[in-house]
Amino acid sequence: MSRLQLYFAPGTCALAVHIALTEAQAGHELLRVNFAEAQQRSPEYLAVNPKGRVPALVTEQGVLTETPALLLYVAQRFPDAGLAPLDNPFLLARMQEVNSYLCSTVHINHAHRPRASRWADEPEAIAGMQRKVAANMTENFQLIEKHYLQGPWVLGDTYSVADAYLYTVSTWLASDGVDIAQFPKVVAHRERLLQRPGVQQALATGA
Amino acid sequence: MSRLQLYFAPGTCALAVHIALTEAQAGHELLRVNFAEAQQRSPEYLAVNPKGRVPALVTEQGVLTETPALLLYVAQRFPDAGLAPLDNPFLLARMQEVNSYLCSTVHINHAHRPRASRWADEPEAIAGMQRKVAANMTENFQLIEKHYLQGPWVLGDTYSVADAYLYTVSTWLASDGVDIAQFPKVVAHRERLLQRPGVQQALATGA
Repeated sequence: MSRLQLYFAPGTCALAVHIALTEAQAGHELLRVNFAEAQQRSPEYLAVNPKGRVPALVTEQGVLTETPALLLYVAQRFPDAGLAPLDNPFLLARMQEVNSYLCSTVHINHAHRPRASRWADEPEAIAGMQRKVAANMTENFQLIEKHYLQGPWVLGDTYSVADAYLYTVSTWLASDGVDIAQFPKVVAHRERLLQRPGVQQALATGA
Repeated sequence: MSRLQLYFAPGTCALAVHIALTEAQAGHELLRVNFAEAQQRSPEYLAVNPKGRVPALVTEQGVLTETPALLLYVAQRFPDAGLAPLDNPFLLARMQEVNSYLCSTVHINHAHRPRASRWADEPEAIAGMQRKVAANMTENFQLIEKHYLQGPWVLGDTYSVADAYLYTVSTWLASDGVDIAQFPKVVAHRERLLQRPGVQQALATGA
């Protein structure tokens, strides 16, 4: 058992890290940050993560943040879990490429619906951003469907943390007004992922 | 000499990868993508990188994209160059954390000035986004100054690709209307970085 603690909130990308930790049998503790009460902006939480976001992972050496960084850290810390192609630099770079795209493009495009006020103050500007979210998410998932989901897993035969991350981001499509059914490989990937015992165990916690 | 080819455009985050490759003495070839002629949207370039962005790195095994992924790949491929704490998973996660923040938060906030049309179509919405860029970039660099630049390098005594990336993103502050002088650690870091022969060599190419 590790002494790792994961700060999370339901419905966020922290789910990907929770899945990875569960599949690694890390024995991590879950600490819920209550977004409805703006707990992520409390002095106590800002002392943990000055960015006021989740996930944040408390390790014996300090707090780490940013989903792609946490996913690689979990894969490296628990190498026996087989969560990343650690001995194949090219394939590992491909994994990082997908994770970075999910983080810096797809997640960002999604965030322009619930978090548009990060990027403008005027209600009309916020409404303008929200109107474009479905089109941007559709374009991103068309690209994933065509180029970045080799099948059966993101990296082909090699399962990795990128699979948990892709699944997590794909759960936002419905609320963004995008029908996942138009991406059959993404749908099949989701069904495949949900058959993994570790994923089922992670989702059963409600995180 | 490797057979790596880096697609880049001046003024973009491709500079960070070019610096890393130069410091690694990778012997890479530079291929300029002409943004003024929208070459990134040409069928030829979309066959290289279907996202229509730079950087893209052509390797013997295939094309890789996304700056954080490329930076880690270069560090792993040329381990003798000392561009990442490859044997220290926690410190490597810290490096990835900074790179991910630069990519998915700071770069994105900057992009809302020149690339605001990615997130809304209406001129008023675009103007609203552009008005907020300076404030967001200031907040991000305050956080970097206070929490993520340990000094002398991002990771303390350990130089890494995160230093080249931080430098690259910091060069956008002036055009975003943010005075870098308010961040003395970032200024000192820049001056320190510019003394490195590999950085000077990389910048001399005009990339």
